[in-house]
Amino acid sequence: MTSAEEELKPYLVVDPHEMSERVDALRRQGKRIGLVPTMGALHLGHLSLAIAAKNECDVTIVSDFVNPTQFAPNEDFDKYPRTLDADIDLLSKIGTDFIFAPSANAMYPRGFDASVRVGGVSQLLEGRFRPTHFDGVCLVVLKLFNITRADVAYFGQKDYQQVQVVKKMVEDLNVPIEIEMLPIIRERDGLAMSSRNRYLSDEERKESLVLNKALDKAEELIKGGERESAVVYDAMRKIIEEAKDAKIDYMHIGDPKSLLEMERISGNVAVLLAVRVGETRLIDNRLIERK
Amino acid sequence: MTSAEEELKPYLVVDPHEMSERVDALRRQGKRIGLVPTMGALHLGHLSLAIAAKNECDVTIVSDFVNPTQFAPNEDFDKYPRTLDADIDLLSKIGTDFIFAPSANAMYPRGFDASVRVGGVSQLLEGRFRPTHFDGVCLVVLKLFNITRADVAYFGQKDYQQVQVVKKMVEDLNVPIEIEMLPIIRERDGLAMSSRNRYLSDEERKESLVLNKALDKAEELIKGGERESAVVYDAMRKIIEEAKDAKIDYMHIGDPKSLLEMERISGNVAVLLAVRVGETRLIDNRLIERK
Repeated sequence: MTSAEEELKPYLVVDPHEMSERVDALRRQGKRIGLVPTMGALHLGHLSLAIAAKNECDVTIVSDFVNPTQFAPNEDFDKYPRTLDADIDLLSKIGTDFIFAPSANAMYPRGFDASVRVGGVSQLLEGRFRPTHFDGVCLVVLKLFNITRADVAYFGQKDYQQVQVVKKMVEDLNVPIEIEMLPIIRERDGLAMSSRNRYLSDEERKESLVLNKALDKAEELIKGGERESAVVYDAMRKIIEEAKDAKIDYMHIGDPKSLLEMERISGNVAVLLAVRVGETRLIDNRLIERK
Repeated sequence: MTSAEEELKPYLVVDPHEMSERVDALRRQGKRIGLVPTMGALHLGHLSLAIAAKNECDVTIVSDFVNPTQFAPNEDFDKYPRTLDADIDLLSKIGTDFIFAPSANAMYPRGFDASVRVGGVSQLLEGRFRPTHFDGVCLVVLKLFNITRADVAYFGQKDYQQVQVVKKMVEDLNVPIEIEMLPIIRERDGLAMSSRNRYLSDEERKESLVLNKALDKAEELIKGGERESAVVYDAMRKIIEEAKDAKIDYMHIGDPKSLLEMERISGNVAVLLAVRVGETRLIDNRLIERK
């Protein structure tokens, strides 16, 4: 590695106080700070966010923290992939300034005892299947916003409901930050990129294509004028059931902001899917705009 | 009123977005912003905070908002004094820059659905007698911090437990603000200033002196070497019971930060009192440092 390449490595910060102090100094110089909150195991989806942050901000921070509070006891916290060295290498290529990778103990020290809840949009879908998930997301995201004092934070549409929950929290708590949502990045064959895709066996990997295919079908039907959500669900279910190891957690057609379900489709809608393929739970979604 | 005096009037802001924008512009100029959160009905206790903010900051904001979420249904939200015009006149005298007096609807618009909780210190004392109180305090204080983006916020020691709860929230959620606590301001006869003192009848007003007298006694005993909290409580109770309309909600000797009760007194302690005098609930406290 040449020294020029070395210089492009993001600066690794593990201490929240150090992160705040470094950013404060930059803010005082009038710099615009962009944050990309991640749980690491970076893929092109995350990189698209870091690139956008780099393009639009003076300083880019990627946080890399597998947040325990958003996992339920029966979920995959322990086996969730941790690939910090590879993450740093990837971010070096796009000139990210800081990678913030605190320990769980630094984020939730002994005696920590606070929580943040957002109602409404957090109670549906993922909120039903993972009842404590969004409380954990809100908590860590608010902490990251506060630690980094970012002007803008970038989230991927893959976690569409999460973005709506975070936006609602920002609105209700008057958090001084902009939230930007960027499109889903997909593998060539259509599977939405996800750190959890690596859990899939070869066979499951093939079967996982049914999520995107079902969303294609939903889009085709709705753009073609279908107004009955039940008809769209039936068509999606037929596609998903072609995969023998796939089990639907939910299919949902709702308002793009509140996610309240629509039996009759009118205006723009979000179509959201959660499907278990073998042991792996996958989510995907599509925003469908109707003229 | 001369025009020179007119110019000293604080600028009244009622819209949270306007408040944020005005402060953002000042922050970009490198100004240090001080916030004094109040529920209005200002007295010298509040003014001491606004004066400290004026001395230490470039821009001072006094928020004046009777926050509904910190009152239980059976409490005095409706009759809590609202004296905005008088508050503005008082703040004019000390050169406060902004008075932020939003409507309840601007703070909690239709569809609002968020909450913030801090455990530990919030569960004792006031937390027991007013179970939803500190949730409401944390919520509004966090919103005010976010709206004003203040560098420092000033609180009075009169609400000692509240200050510890707010500090814990700031610590646990990494809120980028300093919390400064300033001493209790008392009437000449020793009664801690409070917007609720105006509820007292003449007779109750005289009886209310027992709070400060009981704290004087506690201080005298503890500084004199008393180590048994029970002995101190007995002496305080004797004084308070001299007032025929006074009923003790709690007497408490605890750690100054966690407020965990101490049976044996060691090191510095906080002594906290809540007493109902007739229909009016009064609180007072004393920090006692032992060499």
